[in-house]
Amino acid sequence: MSGSTEGDLTKTGMSLKHDREWDYELDRIVEAIEERDASKVGLQFPEGLKRRGPQVADDLREVAPDDVTFMLSGQPCYGACDLDTYLMRRTDVFVHFGHTPMKESDSIVYVPLFSNVDPFPIMEESLAELPDPEADPDVGLVTTAQHMNRFEEMTDWLEERGYEVHTRRGDDRLTKEGQVLGCNYASADIPADQVLYVGGGKFHPVGLAMEHPEKTVVIADPVNNAVSIAEHDQFLKQRYASVHKAMDAEKWGVIFCTKIGQGRWETAQEIVENNDDAYLITMDEVTPDRLRNFDMDAFVNTGCPRITTDDGPRFHKPMLTPGEYEAAIGERPLDQIEFDTFHDTW
Amino acid sequence: MSGSTEGDLTKTGMSLKHDREWDYELDRIVEAIEERDASKVGLQFPEGLKRRGPQVADDLREVAPDDVTFMLSGQPCYGACDLDTYLMRRTDVFVHFGHTPMKESDSIVYVPLFSNVDPFPIMEESLAELPDPEADPDVGLVTTAQHMNRFEEMTDWLEERGYEVHTRRGDDRLTKEGQVLGCNYASADIPADQVLYVGGGKFHPVGLAMEHPEKTVVIADPVNNAVSIAEHDQFLKQRYASVHKAMDAEKWGVIFCTKIGQGRWETAQEIVENNDDAYLITMDEVTPDRLRNFDMDAFVNTGCPRITTDDGPRFHKPMLTPGEYEAAIGERPLDQIEFDTFHDTW
Repeated sequence: MSGSTEGDLTKTGMSLKHDREWDYELDRIVEAIEERDASKVGLQFPEGLKRRGPQVADDLREVAPDDVTFMLSGQPCYGACDLDTYLMRRTDVFVHFGHTPMKESDSIVYVPLFSNVDPFPIMEESLAELPDPEADPDVGLVTTAQHMNRFEEMTDWLEERGYEVHTRRGDDRLTKEGQVLGCNYASADIPADQVLYVGGGKFHPVGLAMEHPEKTVVIADPVNNAVSIAEHDQFLKQRYASVHKAMDAEKWGVIFCTKIGQGRWETAQEIVENNDDAYLITMDEVTPDRLRNFDMDAFVNTGCPRITTDDGPRFHKPMLTPGEYEAAIGERPLDQIEFDTFHDTW
Repeated sequence: MSGSTEGDLTKTGMSLKHDREWDYELDRIVEAIEERDASKVGLQFPEGLKRRGPQVADDLREVAPDDVTFMLSGQPCYGACDLDTYLMRRTDVFVHFGHTPMKESDSIVYVPLFSNVDPFPIMEESLAELPDPEADPDVGLVTTAQHMNRFEEMTDWLEERGYEVHTRRGDDRLTKEGQVLGCNYASADIPADQVLYVGGGKFHPVGLAMEHPEKTVVIADPVNNAVSIAEHDQFLKQRYASVHKAMDAEKWGVIFCTKIGQGRWETAQEIVENNDDAYLITMDEVTPDRLRNFDMDAFVNTGCPRITTDDGPRFHKPMLTPGEYEAAIGERPLDQIEFDTFHDTW
């Protein structure tokens, strides 16, 4: 059963398990409203926090000028890659909650929402899964946006216990030192055989384990108060099975995702240009229902790789990453399939 | 069981029941491609015809210049109100199949898809449901985009049989004489107690019956080869039940639909300005999943009225039209609830 939630894009540790309060930085938002003399303000929350939107709007109404209209985005939102561009372009102030900027922009107020859960008790427990620092002191440390505010403390804490802690900012898609995204683990490209992930849920560490199958990824989850090792075998098996099924495909649907931070146009166009039996399909939400309308034998998803790897089995036909597609059509050895990392910003 | 498909927005008579060929007007599309020296061409099909997209793309590839990239819209599409604006704005030629223009635009090539089913055998059968023309000769005639090409013939046919046929173009949202849309029946505002609807499915005639409950709406369906009378009682009962349930609501979600032809901004804004417990929520697809994220007691949908009337029971909280909302908050007598007609174009 755990497998079915591990890959659930909505279980990324931002859910309401602890009904804790977040700091929505209302002052900073009101400042932006006044500075821009805004009459329309858009508010976008990740899925797990959408429920908080009306209360935040109420709180803002109390302190903002009377003539301001607040609009809550009802579009699904799974990351800073996933801005509600309609709302962004039609409001004077657009606030995106809960994710770090993928790229700084004057037109967006980013409000990170930091967890107030104490990470150290569960980090203490997680030490049992790490090698003795006397034997192997090298350990990587990564976390998500919600625990970023305590990243330095975490580093210090591990160092005090004798570890040599390796951290990195990663590439352009990552704003902060030690940060991971569901689609990018460049911050774990460090010289250590084990990486400690501190954060809620298994979504991120399982991705990390897929990207770095040679490393041991220890999960210290302060939200669910649990320590475990990230398992990626199930996903790898599914990936091989999908590639095998897709090897017989004649007609390919090539998905170009229109979300601002999920588009890889060159990748999509290149596939279509080199395969007469490939068709370019554009959409924002990539869902089983939408693809069922197309009579294809297999799909290549150039958008969010986690839809492919985690939700793949929910689609009626095999769905591959661009790299897996190359394997399926014989242009890459099957054993060179890798996790589909996303590098560009928007 | 018939009730559950009557309101299905996907069963609008364009399905593949008859696997007939349509005229996709490839010559006209290629002409537009050459005229504009296009390198990117977007193709958008209604849900029931999306499956035909790849074949149409193949046929176009054969006759268009080699360097043209064809892109199929994977967004849901339920009418000319529902253009894929992302694709439209990023392609040199954008072709919308199967719907008449809601508004003429140079940037869109509209390709209507006319049914080749003969409507007269089923019209002959439908005469049994109409009054004898000697007793009451007045009959309205309406149809959908797919049968528009034979509208004059249908009128003549009825006149030859002694009827006085009343037809109208309707308002700005309707391009053609006698045309109905799921959200607009202004073409049936005619001095006749009965209206003959010639076309596939029950979606349109049921809407017509809701808009004009005083008229008898006879359905002559040449696609399913069936004659019937449009029933709207079930829907009216559901509407009253929803309004009653919503009367206790404290928190209201007011949906502003961002689809190009489904936005009623003034209506949405007015509700929110006059109700401190109302919250503006913006989205393109209005689905039960998306609204479940918001902790509201009831919703007002200012977008497509058919989602409210036909799909309403699928939502976790009562969903009302703007007029029904007025009844629920006591600003309109309950017996003055009307079908929510959509008048503006985009």
